Amino acid sequence: MKVLHMNSGVGDLSYAKNSLLQQKAISTAWPIIKEALQDFCTHNIPTTFAIADLGCASGPNTLMIVSNLIKQLHHFYRNLPNQSLRYQIFFNDLPANDFNAIFRSLPGLLDNLKAQIGGEFGPCFFNGVPGSFYGRLFPDKTLHFVHSSYSLHWLSQAPEGMEMENKGNIFIDSTSPENVIEAFHRQFQKDFSLFLKCRGEEVVAGGGMALTLLGRTDKNYCYAYHLLNLALNKMVAEGMVEKEKMVRFNIPNFMPTPQEIKEEIQKEGSFMIKRLEVSRIDWNFYNIDSSSVDVGVDSSYNIAKCIRSVMEPLMIPHFGEPIMEQLFDRYRKVVKDEMANKKIEFINLTVSLVRI
Amino acid sequence: MKVLHMNSGVGDLSYAKNSLLQQKAISTAWPIIKEALQDFCTHNIPTTFAIADLGCASGPNTLMIVSNLIKQLHHFYRNLPNQSLRYQIFFNDLPANDFNAIFRSLPGLLDNLKAQIGGEFGPCFFNGVPGSFYGRLFPDKTLHFVHSSYSLHWLSQAPEGMEMENKGNIFIDSTSPENVIEAFHRQFQKDFSLFLKCRGEEVVAGGGMALTLLGRTDKNYCYAYHLLNLALNKMVAEGMVEKEKMVRFNIPNFMPTPQEIKEEIQKEGSFMIKRLEVSRIDWNFYNIDSSSVDVGVDSSYNIAKCIRSVMEPLMIPHFGEPIMEQLFDRYRKVVKDEMANKKIEFINLTVSLVRI
Repeated sequence: MKVLHMNSGVGDLSYAKNSLLQQKAISTAWPIIKEALQDFCTHNIPTTFAIADLGCASGPNTLMIVSNLIKQLHHFYRNLPNQSLRYQIFFNDLPANDFNAIFRSLPGLLDNLKAQIGGEFGPCFFNGVPGSFYGRLFPDKTLHFVHSSYSLHWLSQAPEGMEMENKGNIFIDSTSPENVIEAFHRQFQKDFSLFLKCRGEEVVAGGGMALTLLGRTDKNYCYAYHLLNLALNKMVAEGMVEKEKMVRFNIPNFMPTPQEIKEEIQKEGSFMIKRLEVSRIDWNFYNIDSSSVDVGVDSSYNIAKCIRSVMEPLMIPHFGEPIMEQLFDRYRKVVKDEMANKKIEFINLTVSLVRI
Repeated sequence: MKVLHMNSGVGDLSYAKNSLLQQKAISTAWPIIKEALQDFCTHNIPTTFAIADLGCASGPNTLMIVSNLIKQLHHFYRNLPNQSLRYQIFFNDLPANDFNAIFRSLPGLLDNLKAQIGGEFGPCFFNGVPGSFYGRLFPDKTLHFVHSSYSLHWLSQAPEGMEMENKGNIFIDSTSPENVIEAFHRQFQKDFSLFLKCRGEEVVAGGGMALTLLGRTDKNYCYAYHLLNLALNKMVAEGMVEKEKMVRFNIPNFMPTPQEIKEEIQKEGSFMIKRLEVSRIDWNFYNIDSSSVDVGVDSSYNIAKCIRSVMEPLMIPHFGEPIMEQLFDRYRKVVKDEMANKKIEFINLTVSLVRI
């Protein structure tokens, strides 16, 4: 919890500059997010509409989702006689996140919103909320809508006592023993269930929640980590990384199936599922997607940089800074070779929920 | 608003390392703050006690005041049958403030609180609120107690159109014309009245507010700025600083008299004055105060560094970084000479208010 954050700043290796994948995930999920928001709005008119973005990170996506949510609310409530709807927006992430960067971009966000909405809209109260969403973050019954994207596949920690048993893999891979996979799954169940319980206390009755996370539909957990595993194992084989170090490193992630996530939500009981959808993002999207033509180079380059911006803060304390350049150079080549041979996709789950 | 912040980080010139004066001000005001808090607590038991520290900066004082407030609340409510009082703490400052530093020190703050309270205390919800307190920051009627220390003598801006008329002074000084002094006063009235109006909308009926700011009791506004004015004027005389630059620079501060602040509060009408006190901090306190013996060197050194940590972010964009070392070297000497000849004091006003 103390170390986890995306690469900070706005440099070439920063998360802010390498988060097109996460942006694509939000765009793909947007119709579901919008529908969930609309459901709440048709039955409720709060004086101050309180929204939390959990695991918001910092960068263009942080602002994009909040900007879209405010515009949508403004649109939903446009015919209200009382034009004074207020917005309270809570940006949540772990304390190591770059909140300063978010806060300094808020005046610009407001200027853009004013220009786009083309008139007055109610005051916006912005708040940063540092802390783990696997714990309480807000007072009872104070949130109307919760959004979270690409955060809930992050566990509170890798399962304990399993580090040495994962056959030198840094994540669940084809050679991972069953008990390791089960330990990851149990950690996910524990974490996700605690997440639901906490949000259940914080969200008002009838309030909505739209969550997008990396998921899976079969036994393959995460191809991006599988390839990182390969690249790192090669470096171990060449004596550039100590075997010992690799063995003790496990990425604290879990990608659930739709069934697994459904079970946890029903077991915990605070929320009702409205929609649960699987979407896929082709690794080639950087090339395909016309809105991303300006990113240059090829998709493998961008995939590698995206994964680097996410993984470095976790890997540097463990493996040291010096090997990062080498590792991600190799990673990029592995990614390029694999992409030449087959179609690879990220699998996203988006679930929209209503507080019972 | 975009530039104003204290020197960031924790280095030798940072505000965090040079804010003993501001700490002393909080300690001096503490009995009044405590009394105001107690008044509210004897008549109200909110489920979640919401406190805002406005103009919180970042550093040890930010944590000290919040820690003291939580301990005090825990003490006041210790005999409640329901032990589950919750605390919601809002840290407010301008967007350029170092919120990351505050957020990263919160886990340590909680550990210390647990150790000092020696047991369980209700969950604490921490929030950062970026924005000017000369505008709305919170939804209607959501705050129970507001604290602000050493912030309200900062105006939203230096009075417009007065830059060229202040006879080359960087602040109100003995040679400042009456119309310049009046313009500063009008700006204070406008800003402080807006502050009261906004807080009036945000604080619940019966809610409290304790404000400490630099004030004055006669025609002398601020001796610290008077001496900075002297040091800078010498550099102008020696051709090291352009006269033009100096003329266009005015510190956006105003130190009101007790009468001036009282008038604004009564005129605005949202709050009732409970106490209004003047206190004085001898510039020698660094040497006198036994709790500060570890700060070393002499008081003039510390006064100069304290003023530097506050003024640099404002002066560097105007005068450039290169002259700062020279300026504050000279400033320190001027301060030392003056202190050898007379007793100099900061004058603080502390006012406690109740929302009508």
